[in-house]
Amino acid sequence: MHPTSVVSLDAELGDGVRIGPFCVVHPGVVVGDGCIVDSHCVLGAPTSSFYEAPAAYEPPACRVEAGSLIRSHTVVYAGAEIGEQFECGHHVTIRERTRIGTGVRVGTRSDVQGDVTVGDFCRLHSNVFVAKHSTIEDFVWLLPNVTLANDPHPPSDTCTRGPTIRRYAVVSANAMVFPGVEIGEGALVGAMALVRHDIPARSVAVGAPAQIVGSTADVRCRDGRLGRVYPWWTHFRRGYPDGVLPPADAGLD
Amino acid sequence: MHPTSVVSLDAELGDGVRIGPFCVVHPGVVVGDGCIVDSHCVLGAPTSSFYEAPAAYEPPACRVEAGSLIRSHTVVYAGAEIGEQFECGHHVTIRERTRIGTGVRVGTRSDVQGDVTVGDFCRLHSNVFVAKHSTIEDFVWLLPNVTLANDPHPPSDTCTRGPTIRRYAVVSANAMVFPGVEIGEGALVGAMALVRHDIPARSVAVGAPAQIVGSTADVRCRDGRLGRVYPWWTHFRRGYPDGVLPPADAGLD
Amino acid sequence: MHPTSVVSLDAELGDGVRIGPFCVVHPGVVVGDGCIVDSHCVLGAPTSSFYEAPAAYEPPACRVEAGSLIRSHTVVYAGAEIGEQFECGHHVTIRERTRIGTGVRVGTRSDVQGDVTVGDFCRLHSNVFVAKHSTIEDFVWLLPNVTLANDPHPPSDTCTRGPTIRRYAVVSANAMVFPGVEIGEGALVGAMALVRHDIPARSVAVGAPAQIVGSTADVRCRDGRLGRVYPWWTHFRRGYPDGVLPPADAGLD
Repeated sequence: MHPTSVVSLDAELGDGVRIGPFCVVHPGVVVGDGCIVDSHCVLGAPTSSFYEAPAAYEPPACRVEAGSLIRSHTVVYAGAEIGEQFECGHHVTIRERTRIGTGVRVGTRSDVQGDVTVGDFCRLHSNVFVAKHSTIEDFVWLLPNVTLANDPHPPSDTCTRGPTIRRYAVVSANAMVFPGVEIGEGALVGAMALVRHDIPARSVAVGAPAQIVGSTADVRCRDGRLGRVYPWWTHFRRGYPDGVLPPADAGLD
Repeated sequence: MHPTSVVSLDAELGDGVRIGPFCVVHPGVVVGDGCIVDSHCVLGAPTSSFYEAPAAYEPPACRVEAGSLIRSHTVVYAGAEIGEQFECGHHVTIRERTRIGTGVRVGTRSDVQGDVTVGDFCRLHSNVFVAKHSTIEDFVWLLPNVTLANDPHPPSDTCTRGPTIRRYAVVSANAMVFPGVEIGEGALVGAMALVRHDIPARSVAVGAPAQIVGSTADVRCRDGRLGRVYPWWTHFRRGYPDGVLPPADAGLD
Repeated sequence: MHPTSVVSLDAELGDGVRIGPFCVVHPGVVVGDGCIVDSHCVLGAPTSSFYEAPAAYEPPACRVEAGSLIRSHTVVYAGAEIGEQFECGHHVTIRERTRIGTGVRVGTRSDVQGDVTVGDFCRLHSNVFVAKHSTIEDFVWLLPNVTLANDPHPPSDTCTRGPTIRRYAVVSANAMVFPGVEIGEGALVGAMALVRHDIPARSVAVGAPAQIVGSTADVRCRDGRLGRVYPWWTHFRRGYPDGVLPPADAGLD
């Protein structure tokens, strides 16, 4: 633990945890064995109820499980629960009541707004925005600047529902998914698509507003080197432990 | 004031101000009573003239009025003036000669570029970009990733004009408003819209390039639960003090 | 050097270098004469190989040449090489094996992902995303929220190629350039354009997907004040040293 950091005596740090310079670790934070927290991070950042009534505030638990790597200037709120082998970029924010599974990676400056469920082995790239109440299943990829929105008629409370992204789906850079919309298992959403309606499993949707233009089975590498690129785990397994991805010929759902 | 913070003796802190760990508060900063400044913030960040001629630099006043909450890793420039009951997310930047009214909230990683006017009770969500010389009137909502641009032929000096967003207007996520364009009072701009021309009051504009598709009076909740959703303050008053929003049947302008 | 900063004894700081409060400067960092590094920055941030095998890690050199200004909360990785008179905004990230030329400016929260080449006198505005293996030539302008992508079929390794942006080209706000695509010399890409194919020199491309709609020679100021706006350096030379921009009537390529 770097001597410059401010770490609450009511935080629990596991074996071999390293906390870099200029971090703030609030009461109620639990950091698992072998985690690395880089400089300028805040763990257990207080939720709004703290600012409304500091005296009555009891911080909900903030857990970062074993083997995780939190890069610099990242803020994890009280009430967030993050699984093992998590890894994130810089300047990330993860808010209260968010549950993140095992082996997830979140890119620089992504913003997970709270009350969000993220499955195992998901990849959120840089600057992804995940609105409250979104659901992201296992092995989902959200590319840079993807937006998951939750309010169809802002400002509103009554209409609010987050999107659901089913397992193995890929949402390309700058795409936006509307409130309450479901992206089906293994589907592919194109760059800058504006997705207002549900997308069936294993289909490809592009454009604004998004239209279904085919099946992922027909997607081929643009420069001809690879041929078929779906299912994507037939040619891409980097960063996944052995045995967690399905066989190439797996029928999903 | 946390003992790790670096606070100028030429800064004025009101009663009950709390400054978190690892902050930098420059000379000439005035922080009103009861403000909370979270960790890793910079208040009164020097403008470019400081770097051009440090000896001649006289920092313009930076004011954050009473009851405001500045979350972690936020940078407020010298010359910014922020009204009472302001609240912002993390990693926000607010640059010089920006004036922000009362009761405004600015989301995580938003970037207000300077020479900007923001009225009272506005809501800027996450990652909003406000170019120099933009004008945002009272009760405006800018949703995540909205861009207000100011240069129609970059790079250029001579053509530069910011957009104007009239009161009660809502600009949805990922929309972009062109330089010099005016969004009329109470208008609604759809997600990912590219707005190149003025939008009349109380009209709905969607698409890229944006087209006017109707009146806000006809907007209905997508899932049927709410019926009419305009004017939005007939069903949404959360976070506003009593009496500041108009009655449901108010004729605006 | 501010006494709160954590600066390695194996870093080399030139004459007159100023390091602000709460910075971390890792071993192997070289900072040229007269550089200013604002508060909360990290220079020489470790690459992933450090986290995989700390004992075997030998940090590649991180160089920031003379006269540069790094604003607060910025992270520069080990292995990045940044030319003289560099200037960047806040919360910027510049990753490993990136080479940046002379006189470049990078805006707040931009994210240069690594293995990127940036020429001289380029301007990257706020929140620009530059994927790995991108090439940006001299005098290029990337406006706010531009995305340069490198993976046409995510997730993939085999197909990955970054875009190439030729000298004097301008890519407007929120535009996205696809993997392997080349933007020709002096070309202009419109706001929110989705560029999937190469754009010839001095042409104008707009829309999603982008279409070529004319020549930059025909671009005129929207409000009539300026007439022709191309080549842009006939009316805009701010921030460039004398003699580096071509004459107004230069034939390029």
